[in-house]
Amino acid sequence: MNVLAIACHPDDLEIGCGGTLAKYASLGHNVTMVHVANGNKGHKVIGPEELRLIRAGEAQRSGALIGAKVISMDVDDLLVKSDQDTLITKLVDVIRTVQPDVIITHPPEDYMKDHMEVSKAVFDASFAATVPHYVTEVAVPDGLKPSPIYYMDTLAGVGFLPTEYVDITDTIETKIAMNAAHESQIKWLYEHDGIDFLDFVRTVSKFRGLQCGAAYAEGFVQCKAWPRLTTTRLLP
Amino acid sequence: MNVLAIACHPDDLEIGCGGTLAKYASLGHNVTMVHVANGNKGHKVIGPEELRLIRAGEAQRSGALIGAKVISMDVDDLLVKSDQDTLITKLVDVIRTVQPDVIITHPPEDYMKDHMEVSKAVFDASFAATVPHYVTEVAVPDGLKPSPIYYMDTLAGVGFLPTEYVDITDTIETKIAMNAAHESQIKWLYEHDGIDFLDFVRTVSKFRGLQCGAAYAEGFVQCKAWPRLTTTRLLP
Amino acid sequence: MNVLAIACHPDDLEIGCGGTLAKYASLGHNVTMVHVANGNKGHKVIGPEELRLIRAGEAQRSGALIGAKVISMDVDDLLVKSDQDTLITKLVDVIRTVQPDVIITHPPEDYMKDHMEVSKAVFDASFAATVPHYVTEVAVPDGLKPSPIYYMDTLAGVGFLPTEYVDITDTIETKIAMNAAHESQIKWLYEHDGIDFLDFVRTVSKFRGLQCGAAYAEGFVQCKAWPRLTTTRLLP
Amino acid sequence: MNVLAIACHPDDLEIGCGGTLAKYASLGHNVTMVHVANGNKGHKVIGPEELRLIRAGEAQRSGALIGAKVISMDVDDLLVKSDQDTLITKLVDVIRTVQPDVIITHPPEDYMKDHMEVSKAVFDASFAATVPHYVTEVAVPDGLKPSPIYYMDTLAGVGFLPTEYVDITDTIETKIAMNAAHESQIKWLYEHDGIDFLDFVRTVSKFRGLQCGAAYAEGFVQCKAWPRLTTTRLLP
Amino acid sequence: MNVLAIACHPDDLEIGCGGTLAKYASLGHNVTMVHVANGNKGHKVIGPEELRLIRAGEAQRSGALIGAKVISMDVDDLLVKSDQDTLITKLVDVIRTVQPDVIITHPPEDYMKDHMEVSKAVFDASFAATVPHYVTEVAVPDGLKPSPIYYMDTLAGVGFLPTEYVDITDTIETKIAMNAAHESQIKWLYEHDGIDFLDFVRTVSKFRGLQCGAAYAEGFVQCKAWPRLTTTRLLP
Amino acid sequence: MNVLAIACHPDDLEIGCGGTLAKYASLGHNVTMVHVANGNKGHKVIGPEELRLIRAGEAQRSGALIGAKVISMDVDDLLVKSDQDTLITKLVDVIRTVQPDVIITHPPEDYMKDHMEVSKAVFDASFAATVPHYVTEVAVPDGLKPSPIYYMDTLAGVGFLPTEYVDITDTIETKIAMNAAHESQIKWLYEHDGIDFLDFVRTVSKFRGLQCGAAYAEGFVQCKAWPRLTTTRLLP
Repeated sequence: MNVLAIACHPDDLEIGCGGTLAKYASLGHNVTMVHVANGNKGHKVIGPEELRLIRAGEAQRSGALIGAKVISMDVDDLLVKSDQDTLITKLVDVIRTVQPDVIITHPPEDYMKDHMEVSKAVFDASFAATVPHYVTEVAVPDGLKPSPIYYMDTLAGVGFLPTEYVDITDTIETKIAMNAAHESQIKWLYEHDGIDFLDFVRTVSKFRGLQCGAAYAEGFVQCKAWPRLTTTRLLP
Repeated sequence: MNVLAIACHPDDLEIGCGGTLAKYASLGHNVTMVHVANGNKGHKVIGPEELRLIRAGEAQRSGALIGAKVISMDVDDLLVKSDQDTLITKLVDVIRTVQPDVIITHPPEDYMKDHMEVSKAVFDASFAATVPHYVTEVAVPDGLKPSPIYYMDTLAGVGFLPTEYVDITDTIETKIAMNAAHESQIKWLYEHDGIDFLDFVRTVSKFRGLQCGAAYAEGFVQCKAWPRLTTTRLLP
Repeated sequence: MNVLAIACHPDDLEIGCGGTLAKYASLGHNVTMVHVANGNKGHKVIGPEELRLIRAGEAQRSGALIGAKVISMDVDDLLVKSDQDTLITKLVDVIRTVQPDVIITHPPEDYMKDHMEVSKAVFDASFAATVPHYVTEVAVPDGLKPSPIYYMDTLAGVGFLPTEYVDITDTIETKIAMNAAHESQIKWLYEHDGIDFLDFVRTVSKFRGLQCGAAYAEGFVQCKAWPRLTTTRLLP
Repeated sequence: MNVLAIACHPDDLEIGCGGTLAKYASLGHNVTMVHVANGNKGHKVIGPEELRLIRAGEAQRSGALIGAKVISMDVDDLLVKSDQDTLITKLVDVIRTVQPDVIITHPPEDYMKDHMEVSKAVFDASFAATVPHYVTEVAVPDGLKPSPIYYMDTLAGVGFLPTEYVDITDTIETKIAMNAAHESQIKWLYEHDGIDFLDFVRTVSKFRGLQCGAAYAEGFVQCKAWPRLTTTRLLP
Repeated sequence: MNVLAIACHPDDLEIGCGGTLAKYASLGHNVTMVHVANGNKGHKVIGPEELRLIRAGEAQRSGALIGAKVISMDVDDLLVKSDQDTLITKLVDVIRTVQPDVIITHPPEDYMKDHMEVSKAVFDASFAATVPHYVTEVAVPDGLKPSPIYYMDTLAGVGFLPTEYVDITDTIETKIAMNAAHESQIKWLYEHDGIDFLDFVRTVSKFRGLQCGAAYAEGFVQCKAWPRLTTTRLLP
Repeated sequence: MNVLAIACHPDDLEIGCGGTLAKYASLGHNVTMVHVANGNKGHKVIGPEELRLIRAGEAQRSGALIGAKVISMDVDDLLVKSDQDTLITKLVDVIRTVQPDVIITHPPEDYMKDHMEVSKAVFDASFAATVPHYVTEVAVPDGLKPSPIYYMDTLAGVGFLPTEYVDITDTIETKIAMNAAHESQIKWLYEHDGIDFLDFVRTVSKFRGLQCGAAYAEGFVQCKAWPRLTTTRLLP
């Protein structure tokens, strides 16, 4: 399968579904990781221009851990907007290129605007991508249909009730390593705020595991919209 | 009564509430059918410019079957957006002209962006239309108030739980004929994809009928917002 | 129409739908008011045996104000239970006798157990009443079907979002008079606790009116269960 | 897998998940079909004693079509109650005997009491069945755990939003045949009320199919309760 | 505490949380009241330019009654939009200046577009305000974090189920006086439409009081989003 | 304050709200812990009679850690039922004796029957307890009113979205010690199933802490029913 995971910041996929992506990859599926924002405002000391470059590298190193292709939409932090001219069309091109069997993204409600704009844009783009006369730089591949979409967990699981779980016991350490690759974030939080974000990520995965009988797990909710519903499970 | 039905594509009203509109008309009410998008990208072979004209004609023929006035906002497919300058103001003019006693439109959640943008724009415009100092090409008629709004079914009824039903047993064949008038859609789906869309429409109407004890029915949910709530039923 | 309203205590119908019942009656419909509990523990001074008789009289006087028939199931307060042998079968007999076109009762969730047991028992009994081989003292009338059920407001409207409203502007004073007929309750609350319960009732009716554009109103939610759904409104 | 399907009346499983059970069976799984009520009051002319025997035979013939074992709890219609002494303990024995990998039953909310009592009893019994010191006629098999539970559709799909679908295109005719085996029900409805119940069943399956892209489908919602959540799909 | 209340029109805060703001003020907290729209289209006779000035004065007089600072974003009515360039950045500056411990605003769903745009913009801005590299005219104060947000009631309480209440018995008359300060609205509604809006406001407050055992109350729902959740109550 | 916590099994309070109870106690409030079931079937080797005694002692030792009074209703496991004659009346006596300012119990939906029966019985009893003519062994204290009720978390937080949180950072070790006092449960799970249940409890508390910005927390939802709603927070 072609798995297309699209999130907002360079480390959001690692937090929300890193274990699942690692599992997909270990099973031989093609995994593409897209971050819409470049994460340029995610630090209190390092400036936007420098941070943008640092984080692009971190994202590549994280993806490399599971052999995933990593793409950035390079939108500045806090300026993500689900509009036609910029974001949707760019996502259409990615979708037409990747031809995903399944898409993973943020849920429609999350803790900040940019995440929610991405979720909306992915929903919109994955439909538009299948319309031949919606002309962009990439032509519609034959038979491309609106992909099933799975929404990953919110940050800290607030307001999120998973309806499907993925056992990530075998990939939890890879997930942690992928998160650790985002050194600018992890190190900063630890040194200046005393926050151990890797422990944060591990705790949420452990909690989701307790809910479904696995040592570690990630939770998802399927997007319920025609014609995306399926009669098989696409999660690994 | 003046009944104003506003949907996205030229055939959406026929799918979602064609039987109800036919019933309104047969009872002597004035029915106006508005499609916001011109449907120009709804075909894999016919090009946008040609299709736009074809579909405009199909919409007129469909509306003529029940004596409804048909209006197109003529927005290109996939570019529908609930913004002030374009869509909302144009809808305000329609509403001020029609002076509806009741409005029917898409529900806030549906299977693709354009539908949802229309739903939002209708909600917004139907309030703005009643404000005298919101100056557009059409003046506010005396006593115009925000209309009660009924949301029609989603495509294939996904995620939709009707709270009110309309018995369309007497108008189901008219509904089917109205859908058949959109020949570019029906024929294409049948010849190339083997999909019998008229059967699709009939099945959903039959299913909604099973739910409420009618041979055929359509389901609705009222928009719950002040001051649109009523103490009488406005559905036929 | 035959309107059957079934609530728990002798004054619950007056509080929740008194205006609607008065309106039904004024339109010429037959109204039957059933209270399941005898209200015998609803006072801090008057003992159960004496109170039971007092409240039976109050209920009759209240019903007489709108020409409604009043029936008591005579279950002691706090001992209402939706079981087969006692409550359900007794309600089946009432339903078979009244042959209601519509039933009004408490919603499934309310502020205390007895109310919720009544709601459940009404739902159960109104189905059982239509089964010929469910033999009770009253035979099934020809063609009796499970009635549409409307749930009235909770006490003080807590947790209740009406989906339909009845304008009771013309019957609000009758509603107040019906509530006032329950003198043992009204007087006690006023003299000992300083609570003006008639003002309580009026305030809730006024609030529901503000929501739907009437001077006074009552709110309802229809029970969504097959085969009780209808294609017409049964509320007055 | 051992598949245990438990519904109320002798034909409820056929209506709600007949296609899914046929599919399980065709894939080589062991299917056990339990009906709690004997269906003795489900006719207007045939008396309870006679009908009970007729329906027991019909259930056996229906199950035989897919090689399923059919068990009756033999509770009289309208007297189903989720209590310890009768229903729960009897279901515990069935569960301990079948040792199901997955259970299918009615959803907690459905159109009549007996269905809902069965749903509750199944939930309760499937936990109790795993407790060694809950002593019944059958001992707890080693390692028996509370089974994952899938709730099947309500009658006519009222109030039900499936979260998972099963493609029953290959078994729809078997499903219809299983329903047809309940001749006392089908024939009566057709001859006396003009209702073609087989068409009812087919329409709902077709509608659920439209929702998920299959010719025919059945919809389900998983019971979300610890420790029943899984990381794999158990539906066929 | 620094309390920041942000609503759409000049009188919306008075309607939704005037009693709570008065209570905060009486307890010694700093209260800032922001209205985003200038209310220039809220009259049928007085023109926009004149009305804008009148309402600015009314808002100041209302705020003065409780010693609150009053700020207008001065957006024209019906043109409120939660976008980056205009509204969000302006709100960021207010938030960075006020440094709120708690924010009160409209709920995400309300009776008209402008209210909902404000709710969204406040949510978005209160996060952006805390990001140092989101550069606006005001620098981020040290330690500023995304504030807890409480959503106040909808107009007439439609569709709103409070989860927390504030007893405003001691400030109800101040609340009424604050509303009365918006003379252009109150007088107009009374003289021309016969609507006593002060009575409207009092009735809703009385109703919310009945729900929680106070003479008068206001209802709220907390915004459930990380990292805004708290372990203490911030409402007075 | 008098704090009354009522759960099902001897260790359920420790799991769901042990940290909160410890915090209440440390602040000087009187805490009473009630377990309805005696836990006699909660082991695979130790027999019911022996286990019942062991667990009674464990519960006492756990409560002693925070100076709480511990009461057992002594109902056998899997036989808990919210009925009048047995459970409700016994709980009424406890409530009349303790005169709680706040009650904590299981939420209405949880992972097994006994928990849900307790939740329902507590709701019912806490109303009945305030009715003078509901005569039991204990008379109604003057002025006793239906207590506000807080529902604690489900097991593993499945299906539970807290609306209020308690910071238990200062009492997490006490909570763990209270759980550890239930040695028959903890030891068995560890030695035979390799499950570290204390780690389970700590993980859930840590996860709830991540949601609300505390090192450890417990989540609650208030019971929304008249006249239990308050205008102050009763959680510590």
